[in-house]
Amino acid sequence: MDSVAIIGASMTEFGKREGWLRDLLVEAGLACLEDAGVEGHDLDHLYVSNMASGEFEGQTGVMNMLAHDLGALPVYTQRVDQTSSSGGSGVYAACQSIASGASELTMLVGGEKMTHRSTEESTDVIASITHPVEYKHGVTLPSFAGLTARYYLDKYDAPRESLAKVAVKNHRNGVDNPHAQFQKEVDLETVLGSPIVADPLRLYDFCPITDGSAALLFCPEEVASEYTDDYVVVSGVAGATDTHVVHERLDPSVMGGVVESGRQAFQMAGLEPDEIDVAELHDMFTILEFLQSEGLGFFEQGEGWKAIEEGRTDRDGELPVNTSGGLKSKGHPLGASGVAQVYEIYKQLIGDAGPRQVEAETGLTCNVGGFGNCVSTTIMEAGR
Amino acid sequence: MDSVAIIGASMTEFGKREGWLRDLLVEAGLACLEDAGVEGHDLDHLYVSNMASGEFEGQTGVMNMLAHDLGALPVYTQRVDQTSSSGGSGVYAACQSIASGASELTMLVGGEKMTHRSTEESTDVIASITHPVEYKHGVTLPSFAGLTARYYLDKYDAPRESLAKVAVKNHRNGVDNPHAQFQKEVDLETVLGSPIVADPLRLYDFCPITDGSAALLFCPEEVASEYTDDYVVVSGVAGATDTHVVHERLDPSVMGGVVESGRQAFQMAGLEPDEIDVAELHDMFTILEFLQSEGLGFFEQGEGWKAIEEGRTDRDGELPVNTSGGLKSKGHPLGASGVAQVYEIYKQLIGDAGPRQVEAETGLTCNVGGFGNCVSTTIMEAGR
Repeated sequence: MDSVAIIGASMTEFGKREGWLRDLLVEAGLACLEDAGVEGHDLDHLYVSNMASGEFEGQTGVMNMLAHDLGALPVYTQRVDQTSSSGGSGVYAACQSIASGASELTMLVGGEKMTHRSTEESTDVIASITHPVEYKHGVTLPSFAGLTARYYLDKYDAPRESLAKVAVKNHRNGVDNPHAQFQKEVDLETVLGSPIVADPLRLYDFCPITDGSAALLFCPEEVASEYTDDYVVVSGVAGATDTHVVHERLDPSVMGGVVESGRQAFQMAGLEPDEIDVAELHDMFTILEFLQSEGLGFFEQGEGWKAIEEGRTDRDGELPVNTSGGLKSKGHPLGASGVAQVYEIYKQLIGDAGPRQVEAETGLTCNVGGFGNCVSTTIMEAGR
Repeated sequence: MDSVAIIGASMTEFGKREGWLRDLLVEAGLACLEDAGVEGHDLDHLYVSNMASGEFEGQTGVMNMLAHDLGALPVYTQRVDQTSSSGGSGVYAACQSIASGASELTMLVGGEKMTHRSTEESTDVIASITHPVEYKHGVTLPSFAGLTARYYLDKYDAPRESLAKVAVKNHRNGVDNPHAQFQKEVDLETVLGSPIVADPLRLYDFCPITDGSAALLFCPEEVASEYTDDYVVVSGVAGATDTHVVHERLDPSVMGGVVESGRQAFQMAGLEPDEIDVAELHDMFTILEFLQSEGLGFFEQGEGWKAIEEGRTDRDGELPVNTSGGLKSKGHPLGASGVAQVYEIYKQLIGDAGPRQVEAETGLTCNVGGFGNCVSTTIMEAGR
């Protein structure tokens, strides 16, 4: 697949927001158009990454609303759903639209509006991703995370504190992100003393429920410099599935979709894991950051926890992970998250990440759907 | 965009079906694999066209279930939603996956499970496509159809009977389709005497609520003959939007999305409307068949009704329309309908349409989302 360029990006403030999903999508979409200096009617394709606007708001067809509100008619539009990895799937869809020649200019807007519903209602919508038999036994995504965390800590003799340190690190990073839901540090004692949700995981091991939207603009690499000097090239992108029934996996500490989508994305990019300078991983639960950092080949299997303990994924470490604050501190509006991950890497690679800036020429995002049911991995390189 | 081939197709019986959406998707998916003589693990990409499994069944992530059930792991999977034109959008997405080089073998499975819900509940889910203000005023899709029909009949001095004749024709075609929900003829008097739903439209002017699934298999055109001699080439495919708010359209008898997606698809295929031999149009309401047959350029604006009166779209006419029975008689399981339209053209072009067979080397499908909010048009030619 030919390489595709990202020539503009935006995101709204994440958190508890007023209004409808539509308002958030329009806010991000208009800001992205302005960022790239183009108009809505310049767009050929418009993708909306969103898991559940029908379930959360009783409103479907949001992509058609957005097409109208951006002044983009008669743009082709489509909603991309891959549950909590809808954003990463949207990036893949947008890249295919450009690489196939179907579109010369594609916008992707990801978003979700959730906080107007109770935590129980939102958890129930998210739990609808799981296998119906697992669901009927009460196994929601947080409980899968608890079971997996216990397995991991036991198998690899890892200390409970290492999980908490993921939350501490990502909250520390989030302090410098003006779009983050939580712009405050938490200490180890706070994480370890917070209420138990799914033993051994506690409240601060989980991302919050969030409203928000993020947008990206794509074009063929060969014309990117006509739009801007600040562009990024998507040199590898792939997605892969693992068993839908989580208990059918041979080793709960290995996410097959992470391994396979990473393998394909690295192959397409012609890069090795040690050539990646910065990464955004899907830390919906602290344990997931370990599983992805190992599955993608950044660290040996069972040694992701040591990297955290040694500060290797800190902002000044060898591989900064979740400089944005991650889902943990930035928030996790389902359909927006994978798009916002790419937004962060885009900002890092064009040198516009402000106080979060690290030295980076290459970056990676990993967006996890369900409990690893489908995973999208994207590798980017600074353009020029 | 490079041309893409369709090398296999299947559909389930449409109608009132037992079980879950999942069962229908698996039935169509396995039949399509068998039709093409390939295995699930041969697939690179798997798209599911579905509008509302979350709303209808409380189950999301159906694409991940299907990936597992087809033995297709670690296939990349994604749900494509474009409301009632999700199937047509899925065809476009599948073509982009192949033409971009991201996939060498892509399956698309469209499906919807609706009949376990009441007609009121289903209508309410479908009405969630509309603009929230229109929705709050009680304007569901059937009422838009009634308003448009009245406008059309008045503006073009068309007789009420011409609408009823669409239903009569499509029911007559459906008799020969073993997958159709209604395999029985209806006469003009029955249509005109059925209960009023949205004046002037009556019960028999509307498609039914339906369960069902259909599947297609795509590969690059240059390798199609390695799989089968019976393949079809997608030579034109496009999608386009019209205003989300229906009352903002200058002329309610012109569907902008139909006109624009048709224009783009014909341009890509290098064909003119009079070079199309057979077409499947989205006759969710009888009036829509007129609007599409005119918007696509088959007949002059305001003269689609004359074509019906003169039998020009009958099975033995110059342009047979809805040889499958159309949505009207075959049924309309939202996410499946656009896929099943392409299934019918595929069968016609490979000469495997049984008693419905017409002489055709080229065919077209038009799949309408919402009330023309987004429309996908696909043009196919017999391979060889």
